[in-house]
Amino acid sequence: MLVIGENINASNVSVGKAISNRDREFLENLARAQSAAGADFIDVNVGAGQGFNEHVEAAMEWLVEVVQGATDTPLSIDSDVPSAVEVALRSYRGNALMINSVSAEPGKLESIGRLAAERQAYLVALAMGTQGIPNNVEERLAACELIMSHLTRLGLTEEQVFFDPLVLPISVDPTQGQVTLKTIEQIKSRYPSAKTVMGLSNISYGLPQRGMVNRAFLLMAAYAGLDAAILNPLDAKMMSFVRVADMLTGKDPSCKGYLRAHRRGILVD
Amino acid sequence: MLVIGENINASNVSVGKAISNRDREFLENLARAQSAAGADFIDVNVGAGQGFNEHVEAAMEWLVEVVQGATDTPLSIDSDVPSAVEVALRSYRGNALMINSVSAEPGKLESIGRLAAERQAYLVALAMGTQGIPNNVEERLAACELIMSHLTRLGLTEEQVFFDPLVLPISVDPTQGQVTLKTIEQIKSRYPSAKTVMGLSNISYGLPQRGMVNRAFLLMAAYAGLDAAILNPLDAKMMSFVRVADMLTGKDPSCKGYLRAHRRGILVD
Repeated sequence: MLVIGENINASNVSVGKAISNRDREFLENLARAQSAAGADFIDVNVGAGQGFNEHVEAAMEWLVEVVQGATDTPLSIDSDVPSAVEVALRSYRGNALMINSVSAEPGKLESIGRLAAERQAYLVALAMGTQGIPNNVEERLAACELIMSHLTRLGLTEEQVFFDPLVLPISVDPTQGQVTLKTIEQIKSRYPSAKTVMGLSNISYGLPQRGMVNRAFLLMAAYAGLDAAILNPLDAKMMSFVRVADMLTGKDPSCKGYLRAHRRGILVD
Repeated sequence: MLVIGENINASNVSVGKAISNRDREFLENLARAQSAAGADFIDVNVGAGQGFNEHVEAAMEWLVEVVQGATDTPLSIDSDVPSAVEVALRSYRGNALMINSVSAEPGKLESIGRLAAERQAYLVALAMGTQGIPNNVEERLAACELIMSHLTRLGLTEEQVFFDPLVLPISVDPTQGQVTLKTIEQIKSRYPSAKTVMGLSNISYGLPQRGMVNRAFLLMAAYAGLDAAILNPLDAKMMSFVRVADMLTGKDPSCKGYLRAHRRGILVD
């Protein structure tokens, strides 16, 4: 399971403040800690500009500089503002790179899709159109189909696309866990070279003891075919279950990764 | 998820001693504790007679009396000795009843299958023949097919059969998690009215921090279609994940069971 560290996100108050105040050290530490904890990508999100007395582009450019100076872990440029993505791509010197995200909304699909094609970046694509998150598998797959046909026309390969099946809270509709998991299965079956990615926490919205629900959902999703998760790599319990998920899905031959984590004392039961 | 409480098993030293010594109170308490913790069935296993200076049948008869006197929770008669199963069925006054287990081995399949048919009991059927546990899905399904055709000839319905897909340790072969889970999926697809059941702990044999691996495997199995698990209901973490599994697979509408468990303070994260 690829881990995309979610912690550098302006919607987190202390992170938003650190970006506003250009608190380089705080963000460098957060980047390094996520890398050390096993993040494969570090997501960087400066928000939509609310709370800043400045342009989104300038904030993104500065943040990309700071994070790539602190760690070699590839970045995930998290913005749906095409100009901010463009600035980030220009500033970023690393090789592997992810852009997070597009949906089936034609305008951004075109502009951000083009940027991903030029830079040969991975692109997270949300299984939704302009009408919000569909509550069923079929409409999510229809969005994926539209996205994939558009992106391949722009020159992206199936391998570059990370589909996010999307999750609605199970507290609102008890079938939504299954809807998301079946969407993952269907995506993997229709686009065998594409990847799947998901943020987990929406599943447990409105419930108590959410961590347990999120971890449980990760395991089911891993079995359904999830390739990557957007999560907090500093959550030791979650990361332990990521390692167990890899072992149980055959991605950790001889259980080496699990046993190494055990010896390092970082498996939290 | 149906929970079959595994604790009253003579292979556990203190339980074996309590059966030998006819320590009624110890076993009554163990039965009541499992019921209170949410067991849907209580498994009773007197071993194969080793360590007893007596007949398996007498031990089983006594144990069934003790446990059904302590709780109304249905029993799972766990023995592959047909005469012990017969004695247990005669002693048992409850309605729902499970027999654990048969395999594709013809002799016991015939004799224990007959007992299950007469008593209209549920019957656990191991997906294996006389050659030990197959390491692949196909041979496990072949065993299921042989078992199902034999049992239906004896008059059992598909609904009465609980197939155990069987688990081999992932430390020996990293593909075995997937083999078991795919076997569950295939059983559910071929026999839509049959149930699936599994003991979990074999998956983590040879590994450290086994509880976490067992819980993770339960979640994947729940998504694959597992209907029942043989486990320790006094393991609060495991039972918490059983509740989460039910919620995520749509078996706990409105999350009522989960929320009730949270309010009772029995969800252990």
